Parts: sequence; C-alpha cells; structure tokens
Amino acid sequence: MSIEQTIETMARQARQASRGLVRLSVAAKNRVLERMAVSLRERGEYIRAENQKDLAAGRDKGLSAAMLDRLELSPRVMQAMIDGLLEVAALADPVGEISRLVRRPSGILVGRMRVPLGVICMIYESRPNVTVDAAALCLKAGNSVILRGGSEAIHSNLALAAVLRETLVAEGIDAAAIQVVPVVDREAINALLRLEEHIDLVIPRGGEGLIRFVAENSRIPVLKHYKGVCHVFVDRDADPAMAKNIVMNAKVQRPGVCNALETLLVHREAAPVILPLVGGALTAAGVEIRGCPATRAILPDCVAAGEDDWGREFLDLILAVRVVDDLDAAMEHIARYGSLHTESIVTSNYGNAQRFLREVDASSVMVNASTRFSDGGQFGLGAEIGISTTKLHAYGPMGLEELTTRKFIVYGEGQIRE
Amino acid sequence: MSIEQTIETMARQARQASRGLVRLSVAAKNRVLERMAVSLRERGEYIRAENQKDLAAGRDKGLSAAMLDRLELSPRVMQAMIDGLLEVAALADPVGEISRLVRRPSGILVGRMRVPLGVICMIYESRPNVTVDAAALCLKAGNSVILRGGSEAIHSNLALAAVLRETLVAEGIDAAAIQVVPVVDREAINALLRLEEHIDLVIPRGGEGLIRFVAENSRIPVLKHYKGVCHVFVDRDADPAMAKNIVMNAKVQRPGVCNALETLLVHREAAPVILPLVGGALTAAGVEIRGCPATRAILPDCVAAGEDDWGREFLDLILAVRVVDDLDAAMEHIARYGSLHTESIVTSNYGNAQRFLREVDASSVMVNASTRFSDGGQFGLGAEIGISTTKLHAYGPMGLEELTTRKFIVYGEGQIRE
Repeated sequence: MSIEQTIETMARQARQASRGLVRLSVAAKNRVLERMAVSLRERGEYIRAENQKDLAAGRDKGLSAAMLDRLELSPRVMQAMIDGLLEVAALADPVGEISRLVRRPSGILVGRMRVPLGVICMIYESRPNVTVDAAALCLKAGNSVILRGGSEAIHSNLALAAVLRETLVAEGIDAAAIQVVPVVDREAINALLRLEEHIDLVIPRGGEGLIRFVAENSRIPVLKHYKGVCHVFVDRDADPAMAKNIVMNAKVQRPGVCNALETLLVHREAAPVILPLVGGALTAAGVEIRGCPATRAILPDCVAAGEDDWGREFLDLILAVRVVDDLDAAMEHIARYGSLHTESIVTSNYGNAQRFLREVDASSVMVNASTRFSDGGQFGLGAEIGISTTKLHAYGPMGLEELTTRKFIVYGEGQIRE
Repeated sequence: MSIEQTIETMARQARQASRGLVRLSVAAKNRVLERMAVSLRERGEYIRAENQKDLAAGRDKGLSAAMLDRLELSPRVMQAMIDGLLEVAALADPVGEISRLVRRPSGILVGRMRVPLGVICMIYESRPNVTVDAAALCLKAGNSVILRGGSEAIHSNLALAAVLRETLVAEGIDAAAIQVVPVVDREAINALLRLEEHIDLVIPRGGEGLIRFVAENSRIPVLKHYKGVCHVFVDRDADPAMAKNIVMNAKVQRPGVCNALETLLVHREAAPVILPLVGGALTAAGVEIRGCPATRAILPDCVAAGEDDWGREFLDLILAVRVVDDLDAAMEHIARYGSLHTESIVTSNYGNAQRFLREVDASSVMVNASTRFSDGGQFGLGAEIGISTTKLHAYGPMGLEELTTRKFIVYGEGQIRE
C-alpha cells in the first residue's frame, strides 16, 4: 500500500471505531483508563526497551542532551503517564450533557447535547508521553485518535500505543480507537491533513515550523497556538509591591514556557517608582532588560530595545520594557504585538480593570494576577490537551470539553412544520 | 494597487474597526441597526436603481428567470431586509456574558467572557439581501464583516453597503466595520482566504462548488455545509398516522431546501403497513418514489432506486425509500450516506429514541418531528446566519452566539504562581 492508502485506511478505521466509543458508558471508559494505567506499569520493561532503541538512534544522530532528555521515558515520566491516566479517569465525562432544553412555540422540545467530535489527529514532536496523555483525553471524550509523533520517538510511541491497544481489545473495544502512524515520512502528515471526511480536528503541538506547516496545509480544522508573547501592563494606580511580585513571577519562575512574561508595559506616571523597584529585582535575578528610551532614562544600565524586541518570544531571562502614555497606548501595543495568548493588567482602578478585561483580545485576560496562571490545571479544566489562540471552538487552554461539540436534539410528539 | 493589496488593506481596516465595535454599548448597536432600517427605506430609490443595473446586465448575460428573481430587490425583499434589521436589534446581545466564574485554590477567580470573533468574511452568491442580513448579525455580535457577494449583484451589494456605511459614519462608527469587496475577480476570494492574520472566520453560502472552493483554499477557519441529505427512519413501533404526517411534511412542504427529506428508511416489520399508507399519500402529492427491492415488493409501481440514489440531495419531489432490518441498520445507513445535517426517527419505543438521539452523528437529531424544523428561527436562535455541518465551534443552525467566542478572564488580587 502507498503511504496515502495506509493513512486513509487508518482514518476510516478510526471513524468506524468512534461509532463504538459513543456507545460506551462512563464506567466503561473509566475502567479502560484504569486498566491502561495497570498495563503501563506491568509492561514497563518492554516500553523502556523500545525507548532505548530511540535513545540509541538519537545519540547516533547527535541529538542534543536536551532533546535526548525529552525523549527519555524515565521512571519519573512513566509514573507521570500512569498518574495522568488515573487523573483523566477521575475527571467528569462531558459527553451526553443536555443543556438549554426549551419548548418552542411549535411544541417541540429543542436542546443541545454534548457529543464527541469523532476522530482527532494529534501531530507532535519529541516527547513520547504525549502519546499516552492525548490518547487518554481523546478516549474519555469519546473520540478516536490518530497520533503522529516525532520520527525520533517512533519505537517509544508504537510501544506505548501497543500497550494501550491491548487494553482496548481486552475490554472489547475496537483497537482502531487509538492508532500511531507507523510511517515517519513527512508525506504521512500531508496525507492526514487531506482527510477532512474522516478526521474532525487536528491539534499540532511543537515548534512554530511544524505548526505553520500543519495550519497551511490542512483542510481539516486546526486548533493551535504558535507562541506566547505575554504582556503585563502596570497601570498608574498599581500597587508597586504587587506589580513587582507579578512581574517577577511571570518572568522568572519558568521563563521557557509560553505563559511567561515577554514584555512589560509601564504607565508613564508610574514609571519613576515602578521601574527602579522592578528593574532592581529583575537584574538581581539575572534578567536582561531591553528598554525603550523612556525606560533607559530611568534605568540607564539596560540595553536599548530594538523594534524586533516588541512581540518577541524570548523564552529566556530577557524582558522587553516599554513606557506607555496610558491604558489606551498599552492596549494599542498589545493589539499590535500580542499573540492572543495571555495579557495582564496590574491596577487598582476599577474602570481600567473592566476596560482591559473587555477590550483586550487574547485567549486569557487577567487583572492583578501572574500570566503564569494561564494553564488548564490552574483554570480548573483538569488535564490540558493544548492551548488555542484560534478563536473558533476553543480559545485558551483546552481540556476534555474542548474535545467535544454540541448537536441540536429535538423531542417531538409528531409535530410538523406549518 | 493590486487586488491582493486592495483586499489586505480592507482586512486591516476591518480589524482596526473591530476594536471600536467591542467598545460599543448594546444600546448604541441597537440604535445603529434601527437607523439602518430607516435609511434603507429612505434610500430605497437609489438602491432600486442600482439593482436595476444588475438586473439589466443579468438579462444581457442571459441569466435564467429564477436567477433574476433571486437578484431582484423587490419591495417585498426590501421590506424583509428592513424587518430583519429591526429583528436583529431586538435580539439579546450575547457579548459580555460571563459564565462559570469560580474561585480556584490559588485564590484567583476564573471565568469565561463571551466576546466578538473580530472579523468575519461572508462569501455568497446571488441574493443581495444577504448583504444586509449578514452585516446586521455581524454588527450586533460586535464583528467587522467583509462581504463578497456574486459578481452579478455587485451594484446592488455596493449600494446596500453604502447606505449601511453612511449610518455607521453618522453614528461615529468606523465605516470599515462593513465592507463589500468591490472586485468581482475570483482572485479576490483567493486573496481573502490567505489573510488568517486579519480574518477570524469565513462563512461561504451558495452552491457546493463555491463552498468546496472556499474550504479547500482557506487558511482561515470555515463554517459551512455542503448539502442536506436528511433521513427519516420509521421504526417498528411507529404510529402510522404520525409517520405519514412527518414524512409528508418533511418531503412535500418545501422540497427545495436543505432540511427537506431525501431518503425514507422503514423498519422491515413496519413496512407492510407504513409503505402503502405513506406511498399512497406521496404519490397523490406528485412525489416520485425510488425504492429498494423490498420497497418495490410492496409498492410495485415505484421506480427502482440505484446505488447513487442513497445519499443524494434531490431538492425536488423525489424520495428514495429503503426497507431496513432494524435500528442498527438504519443508523448504519445514515452513518454511510448522511450529510451530518438533520436526521429523525419516528418511534414509540423509549430505548430506540434515546439510542438514536445519542448515537446518530448529525448537527440536528430528532424524535417524532419533521426535519423541516431544523432552522435557526424554529430552534429559537433568532435570525440565522447559516448552518454548520463542520463540528468545530458550531454544529447546526448558527445564530448570533455562533458569531462570538469565549475568552478566559481572571480576577486576581496579586496572586502569583507557586
């Protein structure tokens, strides 16, 4: 079979399997997830052995230590996958919920029922634990999943999926509900992205290059985010100590993640107090400050920011700092350079807080809180399958509910339309 | 300027205008819509004169009488547009609603705020009244809209938009919130579909060819439906009179629309009673029946159905009829040939009704009701901007709410992440 035929067969089988998943009870789905956790533990040696093949190949190919670290299924990572399965089993099942059931003038009862999407395709890079985490969330939401991980993790991904599929079969469930694409060729991604009849959603996770490739070539809806360029705006009426704490937490606690702070905006009238306070703390923490001219007038030791520092995702201990005239100028900067990820204002002014919340277009908008809270777990979604800065369907962290949709249901008693 | 530059400038201006719309109060939006209704009436002569140019050009091009009818802004159509504006003004504004606000263990309050999508692009064919209907719904939901109607309606569309834009300006609103693409070249559509930075959603309405072109070429999310192949399944335990009424209404009341019935499925044990009853009424109403062999054994005068009659959208007084063994066989047929539009079961069996509602994958699933109810107005959404059989974001009839999204909002008191 050609790659295209292989992929299309997988997708057809995934669609067929999804029709069985919609009939499973909540108890049945949870029992499968719990048995998968047991199986992962029992089959740990086999999985580690397959993982060693990927690690050996990676060392031969000269992968960096960081890449090899992401690839390794260490005992800690194995345990995290097992815990993840049990956490997903414990989450409430969104499927079947009926909302807004109302009687219409015609006499029919119309409502909306939450249902699985059907078939989801995950395209991701090196971490093989995504295979288990994504499979668990898709299964719980009643979806088949087609997993396409990085070529460097192919043995690990196939081994993990084999263990999950054994459990499906033992529970009488079609194993095609969880499939790993066995072809490492990039042509397999192209083939997947053309199957809009069989696949309902594509979620790419990884570097910007991969995500752009998927977004530009997919006929299937894609939920994605390219990057997180998060801003904190310190308003004129901000509490200086609060501003310092939030900026430090947002920038320093974990600088390499997408909800870390990248640009600080400071109200012109607050700058003489805020900048020395925050600047001193940042410098003490090893953060390089790249400032606009007004910032440098107050913090003369900082580097001059270039135009390309605005809107840049440093993912490092570097912070761009700009002094702005007022709330409108801050929102103008965010509209121009933001990434629709997470934006926060520090203020004690009620009207400005409300305007910022209402007017700033981003998937998460905050008042007096660190951007680091932008996360499915912190927001109470349970496990997170990704973050969307696409506005359709899901905007922000995505949990189980975002892997479902709602259809209209009608209870009639023989009504016909006049 | 090249077409691409023209289109990109329009889209940038639409984005900029959308930032002003998000600040408008509900009262301001409603006042604009009401003033637009007045302006349409006052500028009726100008609009009719521009419409005559399109009609004259259409006659010269040899458009069919049906096409010319769709193109004409008759007094009845003008009044319908005016009424539509007032109806949209009277609808509740979905923007700003905050739901699910909960305090998390960290102390932050997390909720979801309904917000406009931003910029919506409508691509449609001949009826110029779509220009006004779509502009009104997009404006009420706080979105800018870029309208790309059919080339044969270009003078009408530009005239209607000019009147709406005059009202925007008179109310101090950026006229770029409503724009008609002045270029009739199809290249303009290609240019629009590449502007994923500036346009958030594309809604194509028209023939399957146009919709497929948009779906296959767009980098922007698309909400669409290709066709409506609706089924009614008459179960073993169906009330015969109810079955007859529903089938007749679904097939005959308005056969040319997407929620009309196209294939009737009848339980084998019910066929000897149902088929003569329903078949007689259908034949009396002038409906051509295309039956499977088991149907023809009971209704020997009907035409033999070919394989291509299953899943076919006749949009005419033609009905495919198939006898099936049971509920599972009926659902199997629907899964194979359905279009995710509307499916209905006629039954008095509780368990079968519940299984059909839960397991059939379609945007509207009904029990004991005519498929003709599948409509935004009948479902209580108010005006309808279209129907989606795409499962992401909106599935089924789309009203105002489907032109919005939800962002996460966080109210903090200085919390930082541990």
